[in-house]
Amino acid sequence: MKLWDKGISTDKKIDLFTVGNDRSLDEQLAHYDVVASKAHAKMLGKIGMLKTGEVDALLKELEVIDKIIISGEFHIEDEFEDMHSKIEFMLTEALGDTGKKIHTARSRNDQVLVAMQLFLKDELAKIMEDSYNLFDLLLSLAEQHKDTMLPGYTHLQVAMPSSFGLWFSAYAECLVDDMQFLQAAYRVADQNPLGSAAGYGSSFPIDRSFTTQELGFSTLKYNVVAAQMGRGKVERASSEAMAMLSSTVSRLAMDICLYLSQNFNFISFPDELTTGSSIMPHKKNPDVFELIRAKCNKLQSVPNQIALLTTNLPSGYHRDMQLLKEILLPAIQEMKSCLEMMHFSLKSIQVNAKILDDSRYDYLFSVDTLNEKVLNGLPFRDAYKQMGEAIEKGEFIPVKTARHTHEGSLGNLCLNEIRKKMEQVYIGKS
Amino acid sequence: MKLWDKGISTDKKIDLFTVGNDRSLDEQLAHYDVVASKAHAKMLGKIGMLKTGEVDALLKELEVIDKIIISGEFHIEDEFEDMHSKIEFMLTEALGDTGKKIHTARSRNDQVLVAMQLFLKDELAKIMEDSYNLFDLLLSLAEQHKDTMLPGYTHLQVAMPSSFGLWFSAYAECLVDDMQFLQAAYRVADQNPLGSAAGYGSSFPIDRSFTTQELGFSTLKYNVVAAQMGRGKVERASSEAMAMLSSTVSRLAMDICLYLSQNFNFISFPDELTTGSSIMPHKKNPDVFELIRAKCNKLQSVPNQIALLTTNLPSGYHRDMQLLKEILLPAIQEMKSCLEMMHFSLKSIQVNAKILDDSRYDYLFSVDTLNEKVLNGLPFRDAYKQMGEAIEKGEFIPVKTARHTHEGSLGNLCLNEIRKKMEQVYIGKS
Amino acid sequence: MKLWDKGISTDKKIDLFTVGNDRSLDEQLAHYDVVASKAHAKMLGKIGMLKTGEVDALLKELEVIDKIIISGEFHIEDEFEDMHSKIEFMLTEALGDTGKKIHTARSRNDQVLVAMQLFLKDELAKIMEDSYNLFDLLLSLAEQHKDTMLPGYTHLQVAMPSSFGLWFSAYAECLVDDMQFLQAAYRVADQNPLGSAAGYGSSFPIDRSFTTQELGFSTLKYNVVAAQMGRGKVERASSEAMAMLSSTVSRLAMDICLYLSQNFNFISFPDELTTGSSIMPHKKNPDVFELIRAKCNKLQSVPNQIALLTTNLPSGYHRDMQLLKEILLPAIQEMKSCLEMMHFSLKSIQVNAKILDDSRYDYLFSVDTLNEKVLNGLPFRDAYKQMGEAIEKGEFIPVKTARHTHEGSLGNLCLNEIRKKMEQVYIGKS
Amino acid sequence: MKLWDKGISTDKKIDLFTVGNDRSLDEQLAHYDVVASKAHAKMLGKIGMLKTGEVDALLKELEVIDKIIISGEFHIEDEFEDMHSKIEFMLTEALGDTGKKIHTARSRNDQVLVAMQLFLKDELAKIMEDSYNLFDLLLSLAEQHKDTMLPGYTHLQVAMPSSFGLWFSAYAECLVDDMQFLQAAYRVADQNPLGSAAGYGSSFPIDRSFTTQELGFSTLKYNVVAAQMGRGKVERASSEAMAMLSSTVSRLAMDICLYLSQNFNFISFPDELTTGSSIMPHKKNPDVFELIRAKCNKLQSVPNQIALLTTNLPSGYHRDMQLLKEILLPAIQEMKSCLEMMHFSLKSIQVNAKILDDSRYDYLFSVDTLNEKVLNGLPFRDAYKQMGEAIEKGEFIPVKTARHTHEGSLGNLCLNEIRKKMEQVYIGKS
Repeated sequence: MKLWDKGISTDKKIDLFTVGNDRSLDEQLAHYDVVASKAHAKMLGKIGMLKTGEVDALLKELEVIDKIIISGEFHIEDEFEDMHSKIEFMLTEALGDTGKKIHTARSRNDQVLVAMQLFLKDELAKIMEDSYNLFDLLLSLAEQHKDTMLPGYTHLQVAMPSSFGLWFSAYAECLVDDMQFLQAAYRVADQNPLGSAAGYGSSFPIDRSFTTQELGFSTLKYNVVAAQMGRGKVERASSEAMAMLSSTVSRLAMDICLYLSQNFNFISFPDELTTGSSIMPHKKNPDVFELIRAKCNKLQSVPNQIALLTTNLPSGYHRDMQLLKEILLPAIQEMKSCLEMMHFSLKSIQVNAKILDDSRYDYLFSVDTLNEKVLNGLPFRDAYKQMGEAIEKGEFIPVKTARHTHEGSLGNLCLNEIRKKMEQVYIGKS
Repeated sequence: MKLWDKGISTDKKIDLFTVGNDRSLDEQLAHYDVVASKAHAKMLGKIGMLKTGEVDALLKELEVIDKIIISGEFHIEDEFEDMHSKIEFMLTEALGDTGKKIHTARSRNDQVLVAMQLFLKDELAKIMEDSYNLFDLLLSLAEQHKDTMLPGYTHLQVAMPSSFGLWFSAYAECLVDDMQFLQAAYRVADQNPLGSAAGYGSSFPIDRSFTTQELGFSTLKYNVVAAQMGRGKVERASSEAMAMLSSTVSRLAMDICLYLSQNFNFISFPDELTTGSSIMPHKKNPDVFELIRAKCNKLQSVPNQIALLTTNLPSGYHRDMQLLKEILLPAIQEMKSCLEMMHFSLKSIQVNAKILDDSRYDYLFSVDTLNEKVLNGLPFRDAYKQMGEAIEKGEFIPVKTARHTHEGSLGNLCLNEIRKKMEQVYIGKS
Repeated sequence: MKLWDKGISTDKKIDLFTVGNDRSLDEQLAHYDVVASKAHAKMLGKIGMLKTGEVDALLKELEVIDKIIISGEFHIEDEFEDMHSKIEFMLTEALGDTGKKIHTARSRNDQVLVAMQLFLKDELAKIMEDSYNLFDLLLSLAEQHKDTMLPGYTHLQVAMPSSFGLWFSAYAECLVDDMQFLQAAYRVADQNPLGSAAGYGSSFPIDRSFTTQELGFSTLKYNVVAAQMGRGKVERASSEAMAMLSSTVSRLAMDICLYLSQNFNFISFPDELTTGSSIMPHKKNPDVFELIRAKCNKLQSVPNQIALLTTNLPSGYHRDMQLLKEILLPAIQEMKSCLEMMHFSLKSIQVNAKILDDSRYDYLFSVDTLNEKVLNGLPFRDAYKQMGEAIEKGEFIPVKTARHTHEGSLGNLCLNEIRKKMEQVYIGKS
Repeated sequence: MKLWDKGISTDKKIDLFTVGNDRSLDEQLAHYDVVASKAHAKMLGKIGMLKTGEVDALLKELEVIDKIIISGEFHIEDEFEDMHSKIEFMLTEALGDTGKKIHTARSRNDQVLVAMQLFLKDELAKIMEDSYNLFDLLLSLAEQHKDTMLPGYTHLQVAMPSSFGLWFSAYAECLVDDMQFLQAAYRVADQNPLGSAAGYGSSFPIDRSFTTQELGFSTLKYNVVAAQMGRGKVERASSEAMAMLSSTVSRLAMDICLYLSQNFNFISFPDELTTGSSIMPHKKNPDVFELIRAKCNKLQSVPNQIALLTTNLPSGYHRDMQLLKEILLPAIQEMKSCLEMMHFSLKSIQVNAKILDDSRYDYLFSVDTLNEKVLNGLPFRDAYKQMGEAIEKGEFIPVKTARHTHEGSLGNLCLNEIRKKMEQVYIGKS
């Protein structure tokens, strides 16, 4: 913590400041650096910059390194600045000069770009899968509780009849919108930047179409300057998609915290998901949902962090871009853990079947009652006047049932249609 | 300005605070409210809630109102709270009780939702068109100046050879990513919310599929609670797409301001686009580009404004949502004017053909020279040593030409491939 | 709206884009430009750059112009770019060459700086006064309702006894913290930038101490480059202070909206402050408080808007700074109107005296009961066990009174101490 | 990383999600928890809730624990949720029931509040000291290089004469404004929240004035609800002050990166502070300054992160507040390391004495030359005409010296006055 402790050399101080926790962040990306290096080695072989034997040796050794990474045994010691230098060191130690040749016609800049984009493709795919799983659970819960009524609020005031079916599936359908943005972010990441070198390409006759196919990118980020400008933009695209998704999950968590309050008492959870007290037996602190809400709110700040980092920087690489990793990587883990924890917790939700018995919800159906009079032929004005008078005299007898039939209403949830819409967006991914 | 001036009644004070400039914002949306009202009237006729004559009368009168709106003569006086009440007043004045019937089975909440989403579809389509036009211009400029060299920078340090071809088309290709987000935002807006009423649907047997088709929406926002939660989400989706696009346009403006500095002197513009002084003849203040940059940076703050407005609000309508209009509507106009002004100004750009003659760019090609030695068979280490020694002795003779051939490099810009990629994304829109 | 309508000349287009609504914003600042011009004219007289007669003529004419401004009759027509050129035009029209001499030894840059800072000093003083008035009202309400009990929540769960006295005065004491930031912002604005010219000073022998005293600034912003860097910084300081204040006011509005819900029913307001419906007689939509909340949340985004505008711009004036006016000026008006509307509305608050009668608050005092047993000598563990058993058996009889005596507790609100603390901070201002 | 790996129990999953990295963050705060516990124990003794022997035993044991913390040997194992439970466990292990009594009349909520505020007071004091040291260095550099000229820019265009003296001391004077905000944040933190318990005070007769004095707080946060609302507000105040300071340091870093570019070449640094290449000998990548810039830009996002976390949450504790630690604590370390690294690096700055020899700066003094003609009696119009003609004919001979004499100009830097202003603000702190 203390940067300038006596006894720390200048070099060490500068290293602490400039490298920081980048080494441990790189341990999350190292697998993708190896994957890209394998494709790059094959390409160098194809264009004759490496001999077949050299390519084979590099590929074999890279697979050894990848196994170390996957097993969790890959560590970047202080003498290496990052994963790239550590991996190149390992290759050179094993293969001598052949190891060094992997760096022909590329730069750390496009290495970072390609590793980050491969990583983001995988992570966005996982986030989409987790989102779909949450969507699926919400639809099941909607089906299961479709007949349990809930007051609907506007302005936090008791307003109109709603149901748990409507409430659960509303969040499901919102996730479809979020999926649109996750797909857009995925497409932005799915363009091969390898070959852009330091941001201005290479004078070697590299074959970028070959590495594109090899790495499973849908297309190239052709222009090498554009590829470099992707640094910051790709991360931002992902963070914006996560911000959209987070806003949905955060609102659901907020509803849950509110509905768990003794003043609502609409839902409950098993004891392991709330915190109680034996002398305050009514208390069921919804810590898990408060933290989902808080983490999702924090996730919504990520695009702005990236904007502040990159705004007004002219084109071309700047070292500032290094901080993108420490902003984005923890955010991705946080996003996934929020989705997983919401899914895990929501499975156990218990709904209160008798909510509407409370007299505070007596006027919930007054608009429906009015509409029924109108449907039965009474002119609107007369119906309205009748209702108003009955209410004023205290003669209004609330009928607490709803007969909504249109698409998307509480009597006709259209869960299948919502599922179809989601699948149309989600399937488009692969 | 002075809210509490003596002589202003309580009602007036509250009106000033609660309605604010909402009336003038509504004048931008009123056309879409009429369009939605026409579809709603037809639907009420179809389900038998209105008689054919009533529908016809309403449609005819709504067309009259629409003409007033389009001609710019529609104004919302202080006695009306918003466009909805003004339009209903006009209908009632013309048609008596029939005019009031337009409000059957809908609420101001879904009226705002549907008007905003129709508006956003149109505006996003225009922004996409403007973006495509800018893309097109950038490709033309890239083609036109593909052989004019430019130093490429990393860390703001002179680094590698680049070209105006690379520079212009880099921004073109970045716009493809932005188009992905604009499309995602468009799809989020392209779901019919009409029929969600106050956010909990209606007990009338309305036909939402009919209005969906009538209004040209691709699909329904089925769940009525989800439709209401779209308030804030649709606007945010649009603002995130604009933020992405703004970051591209802002960076281009920053490059231009820098390149116009006497310390770079890479480009120039005709006098009407810069501001000079007869006693400081070197000065060419790039006000237009500074303002594009600034406006685009400000646009990047819009998603966060919306996030701060909506975060931690439970589901269901809150009056807070009203502020979305005053945040988003001017942002859309600003976005369009930045795109148009960038297009208008960039057309006149003049590039300096002799940039690399300056000795400060002498080492720009040293990596290329090194690579050439390697390609000619010299081992990398020997080549590197030769180069280093020549430079140290001052014997290095810079050859300021580049022979980059790979996809996306300065010798092979792949402008057609970039165009194809853009068109694949852009055509998907309609 | 349509920037490129046919028939609009290039000059007009560029004017629309570059000047925008700056003219109307300048009408709010023009008075301060005149004030600064008067001081500047006197100073030029003092150092012999203007003759006494010239100074007198300028002062007289500037007073004429100031009266026009104060009367609201000052308008900046399209042929003038801003207030500075309009005022100079008026002076020249009246005084010929003498009018032009006002511009000796200054630049539009320091004119904007000094006008903005004089304006901000006045506006921040008003905001502090409004904040103090709200503080004062909150203390009165706390005193008035100090014995009316309220459940205290943690995690939105019923937790501990609270009171309206505690609740109102909590917000009062929070305003003391906000006052600290308002004072800091005031001090940042209270440094004379006049004389910094275009940001690099003047070769004329101007007397900046004279104008400092004349304009009532506490000190100079000495360094001319620092004075210019104040552009953006002064505005940001003010916006950060407003953001702090807004977060307090927004939270109070949120509490009010929640407490007005039928599920809490802690407070109510007269009909003119809420919106009802004759067929939903329970509904009292708190539109005013929702809008206070929303506007205060939007105000919290302003520092970030300024950060995005200014981040990564090197020192020296950039035209980007012009947008500061359109960001900050409406925010200041919004801040004041929120404070005034909160004060106006809160005066009419009615509190429900019987809240704790509801059985859902039965366990509110269980910790207090436990503490009392402990104070009476029962070991904590035994007391806790007794309580737990009584509650489990349903034998716990809630005693709904609190005997809190320590400083700042519900039985000892320390309203005078809080008032003293506020006054110590607030009086320091002038 | 993988939250739901098979083999992880539900409890463990929930612990991972809810506690996260809170234990390691608490290790930074634990010292302050002990300090507050000592004061609390003494107070409990004073009011007779603890016997003298119990107080002594607790104090002695707390000092033992504090030594462990200060030595870096304090660790919070997985079986403890946080520092509070670990410290209470250590006390109980050593002292039996007496150890548990420390928790009388307090809650984890006010423990966190008081520890955080004591921590922030210390950290803000360090940040102020570091800021003052940087201020001091900037003034020394200004004095040292006061005669070395620099072109001044507006719109990134060469504009007016400036100097290194002006440039360095401009940043010094800007730090005075930042000091105002640091002081405001300090004052917000400097109010004792201990005794607020869970946010609603205690029914025990605690003596909060005693702990206030014991802990060195200037005053109490009297109202217990206000003390709890300080959670989020205190952190935000500190982060806003850091954001202001960061914007100054970031701009300085941006200037340095620009001035190091070959296109400016105004300054240089020793090799250990820039990164070069033997085949690109001109390249001096300013990584350290790019990272200072980036980290300071990221720091400017912190207030918004806190705003998003806390906005629209009603009063009373929410678990969301826990995330404040993981947002603020690393930010504070980052702020200090940026200040220290800027100070460390700036000491070695080398300035180029011959900048103005370049012909691109020929017109830098044209306004000064014009002013001199005017001072010598030539009417402005004639002088302007003469100048314009000379420049047009190429007969203008630039005289590259400046004779600025007014306060804060390049000939009269007022370094002592700036120092006095800073000391007035900075000394006020203790």
